[in-house]
Amino acid sequence: METPTLYLIPITMGDTPIDKVLPKYNTEIINNLSFFIVENIRTSRRFLKKCNPEIDIDALTFYELNKRTLSKDIATFLNPMRMGESIGVISEAGCPAIADPGADVVAIAQKENYKVVPLVGPSSILMSLMASGFNGQSFAFHGYLPIETNERIRELKELENKVYRDNQTQIFIETPYRNNKMAEDILENCKPQTKLCIAMNITCDNETIITKKVGAWRGKLPDMHKQPCVFLIYK
Amino acid sequence: METPTLYLIPITMGDTPIDKVLPKYNTEIINNLSFFIVENIRTSRRFLKKCNPEIDIDALTFYELNKRTLSKDIATFLNPMRMGESIGVISEAGCPAIADPGADVVAIAQKENYKVVPLVGPSSILMSLMASGFNGQSFAFHGYLPIETNERIRELKELENKVYRDNQTQIFIETPYRNNKMAEDILENCKPQTKLCIAMNITCDNETIITKKVGAWRGKLPDMHKQPCVFLIYK
Repeated sequence: METPTLYLIPITMGDTPIDKVLPKYNTEIINNLSFFIVENIRTSRRFLKKCNPEIDIDALTFYELNKRTLSKDIATFLNPMRMGESIGVISEAGCPAIADPGADVVAIAQKENYKVVPLVGPSSILMSLMASGFNGQSFAFHGYLPIETNERIRELKELENKVYRDNQTQIFIETPYRNNKMAEDILENCKPQTKLCIAMNITCDNETIITKKVGAWRGKLPDMHKQPCVFLIYK
Repeated sequence: METPTLYLIPITMGDTPIDKVLPKYNTEIINNLSFFIVENIRTSRRFLKKCNPEIDIDALTFYELNKRTLSKDIATFLNPMRMGESIGVISEAGCPAIADPGADVVAIAQKENYKVVPLVGPSSILMSLMASGFNGQSFAFHGYLPIETNERIRELKELENKVYRDNQTQIFIETPYRNNKMAEDILENCKPQTKLCIAMNITCDNETIITKKVGAWRGKLPDMHKQPCVFLIYK
């Protein structure tokens, strides 16, 4: 029997086929697991069926980990490892523990000296950075910016300062229904010569990853409403 | 004929099998390309043969892009796209344009409005972050720290400040033959309660990704000499 291991299992984004974004090996690992810690049970079941149409979903145990999960419950999710079983962690889209709740359970596994193994899969943060043409030797991801207008503008200007002062690519995201507003805020508050990359629908059929100067984007923004987007700025 | 596209093609790290870390789709893309911009021709030929043992290497054109490439030459590497051909970019290990020279050619492609498409593959930065248990909502990658002792210590202390002040995971790398020195410098200069994740040989058979407090690592460091490592600190 293998050492009990916490596998971090990336998931497809949108309707992308498994073979396009996940190595075959991931399915082999999944087929040997009976316990899963997941952000959303319905999404995860559908994903596992897609990986292996023969899978017996009813024989699997799922623990749901999201913003509503109590921290005292999270530690109990690792109980199967204490009995020698491995567990898979699956997030809602992309890579677990990056910009999503999985990190808490990984931290507990590390603290208890369990083996943790990340699998390869799509990350919109990393893929947008690759395709932006921006500095990949120094970059920072900030998650969501503040919603309140003044705070958000202050934060945007601070990120733009870091671009010029530290030569560091700045990466952030927005709730999809506020993407158009986010882009307008960037165009209004950043310098015309600052470069903005808008990466939309990564790995999907309608993927576009386009870099232009802020001045050149003005009046030419695509409609990003409810499309998953990553925003990157650099000089 | 498809729109000329610059494909960013990740490569295996170490002796890892293709199926373990790359989606099947990447090989389909590779099989349709005749032009490649690569960090190292020998490594890239070996990788392409591994993806497709039937491949006719002599029918392919390679442009070498590394620290010695003149910037006036880089733009000419995109000439096949001007003739309607797609091009693949392959780095020495992991994902092109992240912590390696590919970003320059992507920036030119973006400037000239070519389509840029990143493919999925292993990234030691992202995989180590996933498995560290550290904050994946806010993180920064800094590449190599300064070599000179005083500067390096100043930088390490500044990164540790960012951990506590900004709740941001700090990620950096070192030339593999200086890894042991790097780890010693962290243990000597960071607070005992600061957490350090050492991620070694990611995706390889001897992969280990272990998080401990700086105080707990003391006297218990693994031998990292010449093993590819990523270092991450958080609280």
